Amino acid sequence: MKDYILLTPGPTPLPPSVRAKMGEPILHHRTAEFGRIFQDVLEDMRYVYRTKNPVLMLTTSGTGGMESAVANLLSPGDKVLVHTTGAFGDRFVKIIRAYGLEPAVVAEEWGYAARHERLKAALQSSKGLKAVFFQHTDTSTGVLNDIEALSKTVRENSDALVVVDTVSGLAAEPFEADAWGVDVAVTGSQKGLMNAPGLAFASVSERAWKAVQTAELPRFYLDWRTIKDSLSQKETPYTPAVSLVVAQAEALKLIRREGLENVWKRTAELAAFARGEISNRLGLKLFAKDPSNILTSAWFPGGVDGSALLQAMLAEDRIGVANGQEKLKGKIFRLAHMGYITKPDVEAGLAALSKRLPAPAAFRPG
Amino acid sequence: MKDYILLTPGPTPLPPSVRAKMGEPILHHRTAEFGRIFQDVLEDMRYVYRTKNPVLMLTTSGTGGMESAVANLLSPGDKVLVHTTGAFGDRFVKIIRAYGLEPAVVAEEWGYAARHERLKAALQSSKGLKAVFFQHTDTSTGVLNDIEALSKTVRENSDALVVVDTVSGLAAEPFEADAWGVDVAVTGSQKGLMNAPGLAFASVSERAWKAVQTAELPRFYLDWRTIKDSLSQKETPYTPAVSLVVAQAEALKLIRREGLENVWKRTAELAAFARGEISNRLGLKLFAKDPSNILTSAWFPGGVDGSALLQAMLAEDRIGVANGQEKLKGKIFRLAHMGYITKPDVEAGLAALSKRLPAPAAFRPG
Repeated sequence: MKDYILLTPGPTPLPPSVRAKMGEPILHHRTAEFGRIFQDVLEDMRYVYRTKNPVLMLTTSGTGGMESAVANLLSPGDKVLVHTTGAFGDRFVKIIRAYGLEPAVVAEEWGYAARHERLKAALQSSKGLKAVFFQHTDTSTGVLNDIEALSKTVRENSDALVVVDTVSGLAAEPFEADAWGVDVAVTGSQKGLMNAPGLAFASVSERAWKAVQTAELPRFYLDWRTIKDSLSQKETPYTPAVSLVVAQAEALKLIRREGLENVWKRTAELAAFARGEISNRLGLKLFAKDPSNILTSAWFPGGVDGSALLQAMLAEDRIGVANGQEKLKGKIFRLAHMGYITKPDVEAGLAALSKRLPAPAAFRPG
Repeated sequence: MKDYILLTPGPTPLPPSVRAKMGEPILHHRTAEFGRIFQDVLEDMRYVYRTKNPVLMLTTSGTGGMESAVANLLSPGDKVLVHTTGAFGDRFVKIIRAYGLEPAVVAEEWGYAARHERLKAALQSSKGLKAVFFQHTDTSTGVLNDIEALSKTVRENSDALVVVDTVSGLAAEPFEADAWGVDVAVTGSQKGLMNAPGLAFASVSERAWKAVQTAELPRFYLDWRTIKDSLSQKETPYTPAVSLVVAQAEALKLIRREGLENVWKRTAELAAFARGEISNRLGLKLFAKDPSNILTSAWFPGGVDGSALLQAMLAEDRIGVANGQEKLKGKIFRLAHMGYITKPDVEAGLAALSKRLPAPAAFRPG
């Protein structure tokens, strides 16, 4: 299998030193050696989350992390609100329903960020909410939500916990768990964190921990109480994905070395470059009205079969760019520029796209 | 970090070609290339399980696989039975209780296998059981359960589903999902399957699928229905641990090439060697009365601090042997001989143990 260029919004490519760590001999998870690495990961995750709160780790994909927030915070009959801006917000709705709760839902049109005035109206008409669920960035649309302002709106109008899915946003877009009053932030290893998929993390505030103590939804593998109890032994309750933890430690060291603000700045610069090139040089209409820096979403020109184009690009150029999801499949693409994705990678992706598209003059944007 | 010898019953060491696969560039999980590898893994898992039934994959450790069996088969109020022979049987009890069900429990003394007569009595006194839960091998004791006979006893006395945790037994001890009438068998990647931890698998019979359709316990990430639905696209519903899947494909190819019966035979021969040496040359009393071939459990001599000895062995000799669990901590050790563990590995482990133990004449077996 040859190396190839991955411009997908998760998994993202791995730095060489992280890949090297993945191939090291397996450590046993009940040893001091692993304990030190695991502690480093959790400590560095606090740095990335900008929090003093404990960070928990799960061996699951990001969805497992999202579900752990639902199962650990809520009880049957609890009232909750989901403010959704895409497929991953909708996933919170599905998870909550799977546990027998019916959430209130504020849904924005895909491509637009969550609007405070709509949130405020929903908070004022739904008293006694236990939690409100947001996405930092919704990977399906490339939209950025203003978590600082949304969280403030929740605090001013409710006692509800603020739960944020920052699976694709963390270590790419600015995020401040403590300063913004975020109670729970869940993320995954395979995006800004520059690791392979398979680990999820959750930062949990003191307020949220109180809710965990009384929450009655059933959970075992995802139970934050057991996970937190094991932290005193620098352990996980069940065998973790050891190789992914060792690789995560290395990737987090790279982030520390660069400095989180520099990671944000580099990602923002690459995003501005990609948006400009896609919009001006390729002449395509951007999809997200409130775009994040994690990926650029844009319409294929009318008449272009986007799914076929992306498949051919992957097969022939060995460059992976993500398709639209659900109703946008074949209509938009999503080109990521977070994590270990570099400017030459993005340039190669744009060139490969460009040569497969009709000349800009012929474009009839979606 | 230097290479070291891992004689622990999970994680077990990885063959070099499997480690090499772990370090390859990350594939995107929604590609034909990944789809083919994923399909190979599931097909090879059917070979290892000895089943024609579909096999499902989860990105979790083995415990997530165990929980998925509980959450997908049962509804509130269901009557179930757990026949436990150690810590992992007890874990099934804890998982079932976490979902608000109270299982009937038949518990054997640690070190002994599940006895059919006790199972039969429990089946006859508990009518209307939905499922009975067993361990193929319980990693905490090293005991082997006769799943063929236990499953037959269930079928003769009940309509209950037969659910088997073969996390540590599969691809080490003979196991025949279909021939033995096992409805659900869950396993993990990090033992006989010679992969890093982080993947769980479940084989699910037609009878069990009927139960899944009506089961009412809440589940989302662990929901077998969504996982099965995605199989038609050769996909997983959520981002899987791609690197672990690619590595698993390689490890399964090695098992196919050797032949499953040869893997069983090799493991049995290495187990016989280890038991003989520990018993005769080291003069230690074996712990398991009904020993499996996955690991040998034996008592430390009276007066020896087993925990300190094992820690020193790991630190100084770089050889990992597992401690006893729970009430057996510091009192027994568990030396594994499954998966990629070789005879020279076991010999090195026995030599390192031997030099740290008092001379056999001085032994007062526990």
